[in-house]
Amino acid sequence: MAKGNDKKLVKEITSMDEDFAKWYTDIVKKAELIEYTSVKGCMVIRPYGYAIWENIQKILDRMFKETGHENVCMPLFIPESLLQREKDHVEGFAPEVAWVTYGGNEKLEERLCVRPTSETLFCEHYANIIHSWRDLPKLYNQWVNVVRWEKTTRPFLRSREFLWQEGHTIHATAEEAIEETERMLNIYAKFCEETLAMPVVKGRKTDSDKFAGAEITYAIEALMHDGKALQAGTSHYFGDGFAKAFDITYTNKENKLVHPYQTSWGVTTRLIGAIIMTHGDDSGLVLPPAVAPIQAVIIPIAQHKPGVAEKAQELMAKLAPSFRVKVDLSENSPGWKFAEYEMKGVPVRIEIGPRDIENNQCVLVTRHNNEKTVVSLDNLSEELERKLAEVHDGLYQKALENRENKTYTCLSIDEIKTALEEKGDGFVKAMWCGDEECEDKVKELTGVGSRCIPFEQENLSDHCVCCGKPAKHMVYWGKAY
Amino acid sequence: MAKGNDKKLVKEITSMDEDFAKWYTDIVKKAELIEYTSVKGCMVIRPYGYAIWENIQKILDRMFKETGHENVCMPLFIPESLLQREKDHVEGFAPEVAWVTYGGNEKLEERLCVRPTSETLFCEHYANIIHSWRDLPKLYNQWVNVVRWEKTTRPFLRSREFLWQEGHTIHATAEEAIEETERMLNIYAKFCEETLAMPVVKGRKTDSDKFAGAEITYAIEALMHDGKALQAGTSHYFGDGFAKAFDITYTNKENKLVHPYQTSWGVTTRLIGAIIMTHGDDSGLVLPPAVAPIQAVIIPIAQHKPGVAEKAQELMAKLAPSFRVKVDLSENSPGWKFAEYEMKGVPVRIEIGPRDIENNQCVLVTRHNNEKTVVSLDNLSEELERKLAEVHDGLYQKALENRENKTYTCLSIDEIKTALEEKGDGFVKAMWCGDEECEDKVKELTGVGSRCIPFEQENLSDHCVCCGKPAKHMVYWGKAY
Repeated sequence: MAKGNDKKLVKEITSMDEDFAKWYTDIVKKAELIEYTSVKGCMVIRPYGYAIWENIQKILDRMFKETGHENVCMPLFIPESLLQREKDHVEGFAPEVAWVTYGGNEKLEERLCVRPTSETLFCEHYANIIHSWRDLPKLYNQWVNVVRWEKTTRPFLRSREFLWQEGHTIHATAEEAIEETERMLNIYAKFCEETLAMPVVKGRKTDSDKFAGAEITYAIEALMHDGKALQAGTSHYFGDGFAKAFDITYTNKENKLVHPYQTSWGVTTRLIGAIIMTHGDDSGLVLPPAVAPIQAVIIPIAQHKPGVAEKAQELMAKLAPSFRVKVDLSENSPGWKFAEYEMKGVPVRIEIGPRDIENNQCVLVTRHNNEKTVVSLDNLSEELERKLAEVHDGLYQKALENRENKTYTCLSIDEIKTALEEKGDGFVKAMWCGDEECEDKVKELTGVGSRCIPFEQENLSDHCVCCGKPAKHMVYWGKAY
Repeated sequence: MAKGNDKKLVKEITSMDEDFAKWYTDIVKKAELIEYTSVKGCMVIRPYGYAIWENIQKILDRMFKETGHENVCMPLFIPESLLQREKDHVEGFAPEVAWVTYGGNEKLEERLCVRPTSETLFCEHYANIIHSWRDLPKLYNQWVNVVRWEKTTRPFLRSREFLWQEGHTIHATAEEAIEETERMLNIYAKFCEETLAMPVVKGRKTDSDKFAGAEITYAIEALMHDGKALQAGTSHYFGDGFAKAFDITYTNKENKLVHPYQTSWGVTTRLIGAIIMTHGDDSGLVLPPAVAPIQAVIIPIAQHKPGVAEKAQELMAKLAPSFRVKVDLSENSPGWKFAEYEMKGVPVRIEIGPRDIENNQCVLVTRHNNEKTVVSLDNLSEELERKLAEVHDGLYQKALENRENKTYTCLSIDEIKTALEEKGDGFVKAMWCGDEECEDKVKELTGVGSRCIPFEQENLSDHCVCCGKPAKHMVYWGKAY
């Protein structure tokens, strides 16, 4: 950690134990991820924050393309009548959309909503372009902004405008569509674990928590440092409900006119919030190496001494082809720089001073555990690569431990209450009969709602934690962001 | 060209000489670049069209980053009061913005416009984050959608929603800002010529044609196949006008509070329209290799014969690491496939049949001139690379010749009229006194407006083409898209 006066930067953020919400907003500002604007719930994503999003995009986009998906771009606006075509869908979204009513000085004949999600637009398009079984499947995705008029907003976690990708696919059979829905959930889980170093639980949402218009909603749920759950990605199976509402048909191989089956799936800039709350600490942000805009920062020690700045630049030049690396030759003190890059969550700091140069070495300091390793300059690239892999694993393990320490197996409502009271917020694993009444009652009595019915089921008991009747599922419960 | 019955696809497009506008819309539909939606002026950019845009983005984004620019993301919405802060700017844009007046069921206290451009948002942000000379310059860019409520719309060329990048930079001095404005115009010109194979004229807009709020607007102008001019990119110098309107100040090295200087610059999905109208022909689209989603398509001849499909796949595997390549093993006839990929503008077709295999060769056919070259399979990669470079040069030359054939040097209004009547639409080079009245009169009398005052000036005569008074500039005049 940075020392003495140089900790000025660090001191300015609230401790996470003291006020987690304040700690969070301190970080998004101090690490220069966002800046507020005069439009409530709409933010500026600053270069450092946007670079994280670009890295997320690049990796996910590659995963989508490798599984046969193509990018498209649908319009920003949805005519009110189009939004209303699917009953459940409009009920879910109409209350929270922004309406455009004027174009220039002219009142529009029909109001247009700013897309909160684009199922209706994809359906209109699919109805136009799909005629025969030869036209199926279509595996489309788009990277766009969407708007939902939320009452309470928080940067990245719940903003009125956010960036996301939304996949929309259409298939000849239900089986194929369900397979796609599951495939994409698995891709999200793999991405969260292998790229963001964030363990997730894969599961199905209960009926009360499904996406508006979906038959099945799958989700990945992550546990944040404060014990609250965050839905990090969702994948929906629509059956042929949308196809029927939007009159999408195709001629199958038997020459019969039938409806196809659809899916949609998405992750958002919320993932940046998840990264902050999974890995961050009281010194600021901690970034997983795979998405960190700067993977390593080189800081010269006693840089006024002959040869130091030059050596730092030499290391930079050596590492730049393989890593996202920066050298800081500014006039700030080393301690000030340490604090700055700690705040920005740079995974590895490389210190190089006169004595290091003499010994043909430098010091690698890992952000998440402040561990120092002296390495030879001869194999710096290899050492840095190994260190970044170590950081990823370390972050993942730390997050997994946090989740395990905060996952409570409970067999009764009282056990849930006691666990939450004694150990604080976390995931509760408990059995459920499948009845919505019990789901509501658990939430009412204990404060935790159902997060998902995990694919990996355990038989904790034969009885619903609420009514005692035969249990159908083990459910993860939690307080949600 | 494809022959006989296989020309079905081709036959369906209007000839460009017959009806250029119809030819254009036929192509955007038949090449599957876009599909219309129920919102006038808003289109679906389909996978093939979006892939072109992704390639444009990738190359331009690299050029921006290499010159020190960082990406950010500003909000979609601008409060009415914020839009109104700079007088010229609001006058220019207010009549053509879409207004959001409701969020869910609640009427908003203040209307929000959907960004038509984001100067005002960047200014608000800069006022927040810039305090000292140490904070300058900021070289920001964003890739986003914008909305302008146009009356008449055409896919890519003039749509109500379009995609673009908008760079917004802020500098300590006017000199630095002007240098940036020119640097970015040069980057655009380089990109158009070296990536899109599209020659452009670099110049300055006349005062009547400047961007709303700008002191200087630079533009690159290209001449389309039909002799109409298309503004392909613009770069604006704002002086300190916006900084004053938005109260952006910084403390300079002399410890005085002063205003910084700003620029903005942008190119849009309109570039796709420019590609179509620069290179396309009566068989469809013709794509420059650098942005073509498919650079080469392998088409087996007599693919039912043993070994042909396998060989085609083998070539595909060999080329795939270095090129964007596709093999078409569908049941369609070769002729049908030829026509399909001609329509889609794939730069090179690779034909491979039984006799080719016997001779260890294949045939490369270039889309833009239908030239066939037999090449050995042993050095197919090198041959394809050379061929793609040849295609680029060929496209550029063809476009340049078209422009040269359609550029008329005129010394009087009558000469302008005659040239346009006899040779058709094109660029008119003529001298101008600098008076707005003459500018308007030329347009009124001849139909061509000023496109730009080119950096490369020629002294065609000493007199204004209109009033005969001393000429200040040589101007490119034309009919504009």
